[in-house]
Order: sequence, then C-alpha cells, then structure tokens
Amino acid sequence: MASFTFFGGKGGVGKTTVSAAFGLRCADAGQETLLVSTDPAHSTSDLFEQAFDDEPRPVEGYENLDAMEIDPEAEVEEHLSSIRREMAEQVSQVVVNEIDAQIEMAHNTPGAHEAALFDRLIRVMREEAEAYDRVVVDTAPTGNTLRLLSLPTFLGDWIDRLIEKREKSLDLYEMAALGGEEPHKSAADDPIVKRLRERKEKFEFAGKTLREDAEFYLVLNPDDLSVAETRRALERLGGHDLDVRGVVVNKVTPEPDPGEDGRGARYLRERCARERERIAEIEGSFPVPVVARIESRTGEVKGDVLRDVAAELAIDVGASASRAR
Amino acid sequence: MASFTFFGGKGGVGKTTVSAAFGLRCADAGQETLLVSTDPAHSTSDLFEQAFDDEPRPVEGYENLDAMEIDPEAEVEEHLSSIRREMAEQVSQVVVNEIDAQIEMAHNTPGAHEAALFDRLIRVMREEAEAYDRVVVDTAPTGNTLRLLSLPTFLGDWIDRLIEKREKSLDLYEMAALGGEEPHKSAADDPIVKRLRERKEKFEFAGKTLREDAEFYLVLNPDDLSVAETRRALERLGGHDLDVRGVVVNKVTPEPDPGEDGRGARYLRERCARERERIAEIEGSFPVPVVARIESRTGEVKGDVLRDVAAELAIDVGASASRAR
Repeated sequence: MASFTFFGGKGGVGKTTVSAAFGLRCADAGQETLLVSTDPAHSTSDLFEQAFDDEPRPVEGYENLDAMEIDPEAEVEEHLSSIRREMAEQVSQVVVNEIDAQIEMAHNTPGAHEAALFDRLIRVMREEAEAYDRVVVDTAPTGNTLRLLSLPTFLGDWIDRLIEKREKSLDLYEMAALGGEEPHKSAADDPIVKRLRERKEKFEFAGKTLREDAEFYLVLNPDDLSVAETRRALERLGGHDLDVRGVVVNKVTPEPDPGEDGRGARYLRERCARERERIAEIEGSFPVPVVARIESRTGEVKGDVLRDVAAELAIDVGASASRAR
Repeated sequence: MASFTFFGGKGGVGKTTVSAAFGLRCADAGQETLLVSTDPAHSTSDLFEQAFDDEPRPVEGYENLDAMEIDPEAEVEEHLSSIRREMAEQVSQVVVNEIDAQIEMAHNTPGAHEAALFDRLIRVMREEAEAYDRVVVDTAPTGNTLRLLSLPTFLGDWIDRLIEKREKSLDLYEMAALGGEEPHKSAADDPIVKRLRERKEKFEFAGKTLREDAEFYLVLNPDDLSVAETRRALERLGGHDLDVRGVVVNKVTPEPDPGEDGRGARYLRERCARERERIAEIEGSFPVPVVARIESRTGEVKGDVLRDVAAELAIDVGASASRAR
C-alpha cells in the first residue's frame, strides 16, 4: 500500500512544479513513485517534455517514476453522463429532459469539477495504490470535498432509516396482498439502497485512506492573499483530522547581489524585505512548519532545474507517510 | 442615473486598487462618484485609511467621492436567513428542519457568495444610482452570476405556465364546490407567483442596467494563468452582450536602470522580457485593448500613490458609460 502525499494550494502558486520535484526526489530515493497531476494546463507534460494521459505511464529518462494527468473537464463530462444514464434507468423520459437542463447548469459550477475529480482520485487510491510505494498528487481536497468525508456517517444513518421504512412498506404490501404472486421483496435488494451503500463505502474508504495513509502540504506564495487563504485551508484540513505536515513557500523573490545598486536592486530589496516579514508571520502563527522556501525562477523549470527545486524541499522522503497511532 | 464601471478579475490581481484609483480619477474630474468594494479584506478602508461599511459615506480628504464596503459573508448570512424566514411561512416546521441542514451546507459553496453579492449589487443599482454620476465596483459578474441575467426569459415562460395550471385547478375547484363559501381565487393573488414575478423583474432590471448603463474592464497580471483566465472571462462577458472596454495589466515588473548589472538586474530583465511577451500576446489576441500597464509597487498604495496609479489608466472618464445604440 502506497503512502499518499498531497500538495494543495490555490491555482498559480506552483503546486504542480513542487509535486513533480517531490515525486522525482522520492523516485531518486528508490521509491516506486506515481505522480498524479490534476492541472488542466497539462503542466506535468510540459515539465518532463513528454505527454501523459489518464493512465499511469513511465516518465522516460527517470527511474522509478510514473506519471498520469487527470483532466477535470473530461471527468466532469464522464461524471455527468453517468448520472444521466443512472437517472434514465429510474425515471421517465419527461423527467430526464427536465432534469437535463439542471445538469447542464450544474456542469459549470466549481462543485461539479471538485466532485468529479474527487471520484477519480478515489479510483486512483483503490486501483493504483498497491503498485507503488508513493503516490504524489498536486492537489488537496478542498472544503467542499472534505465535507464528503463526513458523509458516510450521515449516509449510514439515512440508509438505516430508509431500509426500516422500506421494510415496513413491504410488510404492509404483503399483508394487503395476502400471499399473492409477487415474490417476497427485501429492502436489501433495493437498487437505490444498494447504490447508497456503495457510495457510503466509497467515501468511507476515501476517509480512511486520507486519514491514515496520507500526508498533506500546502504550497503558497509570500503575498498577503496567499497567506490568508492558506491559513483558512490549514484550519479546514486540520478540522478533518488530516495529517498536515507543513507549508512550502514558493516563488520567493531572489535577493540582488550585495554590491548591486539602482532602481532594480532597490525594488528587489524592498520586495524581499516584505516577503521576509510575511514568512516570519507564517512561521510565528501557522500550526505547521515551513518545509521549504523556493526562489522564483524566470526560466522554465525542467529536468535538472526540477532536481534543484527538489533539493530545496526539507521533506523527509525516507519515512513512510503512514501514521503510527 | 449613474454610469456603472466594473473592474473584474481573480482575487489578488489588484482589482480593488485599480477601482479606487479609477474612482478617484472620476471624482477629481468632477463626477459625483460612489466606490463600491466587495473585497472581504476591507482593502478600500486600508487604501484610504478610514473605515467604510455597508452604507455609502464620504471619503474624508477627497471631494465628490463616497465609498461603501459590502461584506459577502454578511450578505450570505442575511440571504440565507431571509430564505429560512420565507420558507417558514410556507412549509411545516418538520420540512424546515430537514431543509435547514441543506441550507447550512449550501452556505459555504462559492455560488452562495456570488448570489448574495449579486442581490446586494442589484439593490445598490436600484437605490444609489440616482444620487451619483458614476458608480465604480471592484468586481464583475462571474459566469454563475451572468447566468442569472438570462433567467427573466426563462422565469417568464415558467410563470406563465404556472399561472395557467393554477387557473385550471382553481376552475376545477369552483366546479367541484359548486358555489361554496370559498371566495373566488385567482392565480394573480398567489403568493408564490407574486414572489416569482418579483424575482423576474429584479433580474430583468439588473440585466437591462448591466447591458445599457455599465462598462466592464478586467484586471489581470502578466502571468500565464492570469492571461488564460482573463481570456475565458472575456468570452463569457462578451457572450452576454456586455460592454467590455478593455483590460488593465497590473503588477508589471519594473525594469532595472540601464547600467545596472548583477544577479538582481539579470533576474528582473528576464522577468520583464517574459512579461513583455505575454502583453504582446494579449494585445495580439484579446478582443479588447490594453488600457493600462501598471507597474508593481513594493510599498502600500495610499493617497498620492493612488493618484499616480490613476494617471496610468488610459480610460476616458469624461464620456458617460451609457451606450448610444
């Protein structure tokens, strides 16, 4: 069973680069590693200059490293058409048409993307975990997705109540029919109850895996907005009893040379001073440590540059992510 | 009737600063101006170093300029409790309790914030527009909100069908009762139909105002993600027949002095070169012009600095935003 490492953070902070660097470092340390990217811009393909898709495949030129890219848009499409198919089996065509418009509207909501992505990630956890020592994912569950983790408890109670009601109505039916042709039905065979049970088990599995076999890092940039958002994200993750190990400060402005002077050097020094203040604030007030400060690079991060970035991550890759508790 | 100017863009690009600068410029040009901020960080209060709240009040030290800050979180709270109140009048307590949990879940979805904010903005359009020449808002309707603009047409048809059905059932009732005690009911008095009519009119008013009396600008930063997101936002806004006038490129990296050399100067020159490429791409491929390139400032933007920023906006404040067409 693989350990899962999630790197979360808002779009643009550099999650995908940091994840790829960390995955490479795990692979270099001898762990069979799978890098899972959910970035719609296919930036993992850019980083390694080779195309990846929805199935894990080896990263050429690197040992122990496989990669895959999940396309959230394609997942939403697939997710919605599976909902349509299921619905078509259970309700009339007129109702299907009415609800189709609603589904089309739901398509573009952020929630639809998250739900579809989370479904796909759970499948990765189930199907790929055995083949690897480490699975590195460039996204962390958000507030909406985390709420799904408390769903099994909620669903469990609901399903129990449903079964109770269903059995009562089946009993009444039997009494009314007085031993007619209809075979004895039981709530356990009910297709809707079955489907609910499956969903309950799926989220139960996901919750267990995320709580016991996963570690989380948040990537942020040294600006006020990113610091504030990361603070809120840490609270949410911590509130769900997840193992958040630290934050990665990415895109730190480089200092000019000591002797440098002029408009540019003054700008950079002022900027660096403000960023140092913010990093001190993070270190003083966040519940987890800063595990890396990665300098902003102007050129594209590829190949050896990725190893340079990896070297800046003060994350222990030797230890398994599994919590002994 | 005021002209409305909206500055849209993702969090962190600097919409609030650009809006305040533009509002100040309109005020300096003699227009009675209201600055409406929807930024949860109360940055308009920071910019002018004085507190604003949900009601318009004069900005001290500046002529012709009022400001107000809308708190999206407070609006969501208010919005949801008003839904609860309405519901309580129409359904039983048991149903209210069941639905309450759903509402609590809906609270944290991005859609709830947008809907509440849009409701509040429509109220500003209705109540404050007469008192000002110009209203500057630091947010633009997003995809989800824009969809509400096509709701009146949809709602109109629906309400018509509802009234038809309601009248049929009222007729049947009359026929069955054969002139009983019940007074003659009409669908026009139905509280639910009345409420739907009100919503329809509200969104009709908002659509008309946004299409005829408003101009839109999008603020972005010269990085790939921001460019890609702005391209999509422009398509959405244009698709709803809104008057999008241009984009503001904010946080452009300053060039070092010509003679400057060293690590810092090299970093800045490479960065500036990449940003120039992106701006050229914007100019070559966006359907609207770049109306400003505003340099990144390290210090806080306040008072006179705000006027410097305002001077960099190539937006004509003399012309009214109303479209002659």
